[in-house]
Amino acid sequence: MINFNKPYLTGKETKYIKSAVKYGHISGNGFYTKECQRFFEERFGFRKSILTTSCTDALEMAAILCDIQPGDEVIAPSYTFVSTVNAFILRGAKIVFCDSRSDHPGIDELKIKDLITPKTKAVVVVHYAGVACDMDQVMKIAKENKLYVIEDAAQAIDSYYTGKDSVKKPLGSIGHMAAFSFHETKNIISGEGGMLVVNDERFEKRAEIIWEKGTNRSAFFKGEVDKYGWVDIGSSFLPSEIIAAFLFAQLENLEQIQIKRKSIWNQYHEGLKPLEDQGKLRLAKIPKCSTNNAHMFYVVCRSVEERDSLLTFLKQNQINAVFHYLSLHKSPFHLANNPFINLPNSDFYSECLIRLPFYYELKDGDIKRIIAEIECFYNQN
Amino acid sequence: MINFNKPYLTGKETKYIKSAVKYGHISGNGFYTKECQRFFEERFGFRKSILTTSCTDALEMAAILCDIQPGDEVIAPSYTFVSTVNAFILRGAKIVFCDSRSDHPGIDELKIKDLITPKTKAVVVVHYAGVACDMDQVMKIAKENKLYVIEDAAQAIDSYYTGKDSVKKPLGSIGHMAAFSFHETKNIISGEGGMLVVNDERFEKRAEIIWEKGTNRSAFFKGEVDKYGWVDIGSSFLPSEIIAAFLFAQLENLEQIQIKRKSIWNQYHEGLKPLEDQGKLRLAKIPKCSTNNAHMFYVVCRSVEERDSLLTFLKQNQINAVFHYLSLHKSPFHLANNPFINLPNSDFYSECLIRLPFYYELKDGDIKRIIAEIECFYNQN
Repeated sequence: MINFNKPYLTGKETKYIKSAVKYGHISGNGFYTKECQRFFEERFGFRKSILTTSCTDALEMAAILCDIQPGDEVIAPSYTFVSTVNAFILRGAKIVFCDSRSDHPGIDELKIKDLITPKTKAVVVVHYAGVACDMDQVMKIAKENKLYVIEDAAQAIDSYYTGKDSVKKPLGSIGHMAAFSFHETKNIISGEGGMLVVNDERFEKRAEIIWEKGTNRSAFFKGEVDKYGWVDIGSSFLPSEIIAAFLFAQLENLEQIQIKRKSIWNQYHEGLKPLEDQGKLRLAKIPKCSTNNAHMFYVVCRSVEERDSLLTFLKQNQINAVFHYLSLHKSPFHLANNPFINLPNSDFYSECLIRLPFYYELKDGDIKRIIAEIECFYNQN
Repeated sequence: MINFNKPYLTGKETKYIKSAVKYGHISGNGFYTKECQRFFEERFGFRKSILTTSCTDALEMAAILCDIQPGDEVIAPSYTFVSTVNAFILRGAKIVFCDSRSDHPGIDELKIKDLITPKTKAVVVVHYAGVACDMDQVMKIAKENKLYVIEDAAQAIDSYYTGKDSVKKPLGSIGHMAAFSFHETKNIISGEGGMLVVNDERFEKRAEIIWEKGTNRSAFFKGEVDKYGWVDIGSSFLPSEIIAAFLFAQLENLEQIQIKRKSIWNQYHEGLKPLEDQGKLRLAKIPKCSTNNAHMFYVVCRSVEERDSLLTFLKQNQINAVFHYLSLHKSPFHLANNPFINLPNSDFYSECLIRLPFYYELKDGDIKRIIAEIECFYNQN
């Protein structure tokens, strides 16, 4: 069986975990947390990086920092993971779902404008598969309407956007805030794990407080206050040093991991291109404004029936490929309190997209076999 | 320097982390998570144990499960950590603070009744230092007034309560729900980490959903539904398998850890008893209804001035003893929206309590030295 995912150990994770224990500090915000945060700030130029226990938690921090209040509206894609929106619903937000683009699963930037009302406070965009949304467009609409932009960059580590100014910017550095994931399926992992990026200075101080359970403990350890106490709402958003130590070992190998993943992506793309040229399926599209961080390789079938048949066929041939998100706007939970709306592109990707096995240790032979089985499926059908 | 705390590694933590990677599953809810949960359920008879990324997160789950709505009131002690109450404030609750007992820092059970209004929905009790609150009293008031009881059992692992029925019950098994901590300062650690215990059947199914980001993923993997999706609010409350693997190694050594900690506690108690007999300080009191889980050894000074002098004296002698909570009802954050109330016992423990160094590897010689320095301080003063 070829698994869909397999977490990759670079080799130094447990060594660093032992070091953290030796330092006598395995709760949050210790040596490795600071090293990871510094790594991200230096490499990607993020104003402030804050490790969290998950991308979900980073999104929840963003929702608190935006001061989302009951009744505020937040625009988000429907083709995304539940946390993109639940983080805001927990603060009382009403979610206004936006459709995906027809050419890729990201939010249709041109449709955001029509969804804005006087109650809209924020827009969450998702860089699906590490592919950039048109951030010039998003930031322009947000500026005109005084909205906060949160980049859900769960899948977007080490990917870049180049807009009209021709400057190549790391994803996560463009919106007011951004959230990354280090879940085991991501390029860089710590099992569960995430990071909030704060690009807007106004949120910087409060982010530290929210992170430390609503206390000014961070300011205390920097010597800015003489004792620390309860100053705000907040949660325990900070991960154990055990997680940070694990993550740091991964970060040291970012280059090598990315080279390998891009090679896997390219092998898939080359091997499946002929099927796309024959009009049998569609491959992931990387628009000109975006780089490819090789987070995922997906194909898009022509119908839900074909998608289901292909998944079954692959499973019969010991290949664990999977579908992805179900349109959130059609979930019973959302429909219980909201009217039905039609978002055809979101539904299309819900029904027709397949993610192929993708991990560091995926062998060339496995990739060839997966490509061959997909060819075989389409030759039979 | 004798540190206040030093995390203890039993030796198998990194071995189990490597196993988790080998199993190919380091995100949440894998083999070690299930093993830890089973351990707690079997050993302590908890109806349902759910690992979380922190005790804070377990309390947040409890607040969601109680369906706390804006305006609902929650009664809690003032002498506690911010998360005891922030978890409920995040759901919109108004906190009504209750004083501590005069004989120990736990909530004064007899004062709860007067704080109940038609808006009261829950009472959170904190088993400070692992010492049981009078749960017969608490459960009786709760039953009469239809309130939920949440045990903040952050410090209370492996401690027991014996009430009128003479049955010895583990702390965390008595209220509707309970929250435990595995923060590095606790008896059993995973750096950051926690657990929600659900004792009331009504919360069981929803707890799994809330834990899995508001999806019915758990039911899906048990074969109860044929695909999983968005069904509720929720968050990413589940810890990485890296954390669960670490924790499991600790649990295997629970007996041994507890024997050692109780021996440390007894050495402190014996050594400092003469000072208590002389009326110079007060030692931790273990009421008849409670066992002692040796989570902490504290002494109570006669005044804030004496407490500060003793802390300074110990620091000068290379001993890192620390004070504990600041009364939450007096924090600027609470007072910004609430009137001042007088909770003298809470203030007394805020001002006069000192926690002495306490960890598995604390040497007999260190304990003797700490006792000798405290004797020296009181002989000088």
